Amino acid sequence: MNIDVLLTPLEISPSSIAGRLVIVVDVFRATTCITAAMANGARRLIPVTTIQEALDLRAKMPSVERVLLGGERKTLKIDGFDLDNSPYSYSRQAVEGATIIMTTTNGTRALEGAVQAMASRVVVGSIVNASAVAKVAAESGLDITILCAGRADRYTMEDALGAGMIIHILEASHTVELSDIAYTMLDFYDSHSGDLRGALRHCVHYNFIIAGGLADDVSYCLRADELGVVGQLDLSSGEITLLGKV
Amino acid sequence: MNIDVLLTPLEISPSSIAGRLVIVVDVFRATTCITAAMANGARRLIPVTTIQEALDLRAKMPSVERVLLGGERKTLKIDGFDLDNSPYSYSRQAVEGATIIMTTTNGTRALEGAVQAMASRVVVGSIVNASAVAKVAAESGLDITILCAGRADRYTMEDALGAGMIIHILEASHTVELSDIAYTMLDFYDSHSGDLRGALRHCVHYNFIIAGGLADDVSYCLRADELGVVGQLDLSSGEITLLGKV
Repeated sequence: MNIDVLLTPLEISPSSIAGRLVIVVDVFRATTCITAAMANGARRLIPVTTIQEALDLRAKMPSVERVLLGGERKTLKIDGFDLDNSPYSYSRQAVEGATIIMTTTNGTRALEGAVQAMASRVVVGSIVNASAVAKVAAESGLDITILCAGRADRYTMEDALGAGMIIHILEASHTVELSDIAYTMLDFYDSHSGDLRGALRHCVHYNFIIAGGLADDVSYCLRADELGVVGQLDLSSGEITLLGKV
Repeated sequence: MNIDVLLTPLEISPSSIAGRLVIVVDVFRATTCITAAMANGARRLIPVTTIQEALDLRAKMPSVERVLLGGERKTLKIDGFDLDNSPYSYSRQAVEGATIIMTTTNGTRALEGAVQAMASRVVVGSIVNASAVAKVAAESGLDITILCAGRADRYTMEDALGAGMIIHILEASHTVELSDIAYTMLDFYDSHSGDLRGALRHCVHYNFIIAGGLADDVSYCLRADELGVVGQLDLSSGEITLLGKV
């Protein structure tokens, strides 16, 4: 299988996405939250771009449905929303059986971009489900593009480490053909796999989140293979649901 | 000083370029050729985008001027041009005193993009003049953006290693603030500085060039600090001239 990496949604093009299985990675924190929601029994999660879209969509939902609004702007909970962008907020108690409408700055944009560029399949990856998402990708028989959400259209290190970890797992058990950037991300991960936080001390986003008092969130996001589940985006409905225990 | 890296011209934006010293890096082979031309006494080198522009510009030149057309399309010499894109072609015998009009696929685009995004200064970097260009950059007092030419708007490993080498030299002697990607490129270079070819065996462009019979060109392009000169792009005239021995 061929493995490629896009470091930001800015790099999305049909040539790098169309016909491939796309793993969207937004380690801090959207895809970690989505994976937590799937693991904890959310019925479905619908990513949307704007706060208004989230509010409009909730207003249209049947009243029998339990709907939660989640997401962040500038790392903070949105006024009037039920859930912020902390993976701890997506606990079983909070989300089991619920429909979650989520809007985040970078993660949602990556998911939508993958659909628009005609991915064959779109799944949700992170460090907490790296082995599970690697297994799903390998079993698909498709070529793979790992699409990092980045941060405001720039590279961010935690997504690179997540991408590198997924490639590391795939390379250990399959014959893979790596693009230049996929090899570089694998190499970067391998250099730091024993101490991801050591590398992340050089990461602007990591330091921003730690300074914001969210050290516990970071710890959650870095728990390798804590969750053995994968969320998959339905390309027509735009809903993420649990692909099943992997 | 702050150091940032753009992996392809696609990432160019005023926020990452304006007011900064930009080092354009296209290791295989444009910025290596330009540096060779400067070292070997070319009077000036004018990068242009299209073959037609090169032909038109030559037609307008005063007849007393010795003008050479150089560049490549798909790594090959252009019909009717004097020089290809091999650094060996930019020898003293060939280029001394001449005006060179050059068009290459990726390198020219990066140079033009840097000007359009309002760089304060634009200099030409490569592995063959890494220490010289680092010295010029440090002495400028400006923040630095290393702009990799990439390959068809994608990341390519040899430019990353060139960028990492320049950052390595700067970091060894100055207090630097690195963006996430600058740190990652430094880290990648440091992991492979003892054996750049070992890393490049995983580089699509390297293998393409080797397969094209250009192993000697690659060897030239990887000669660290072979040339102690730097070409600088004049932002108004669009001409690259020798900045002086560094």
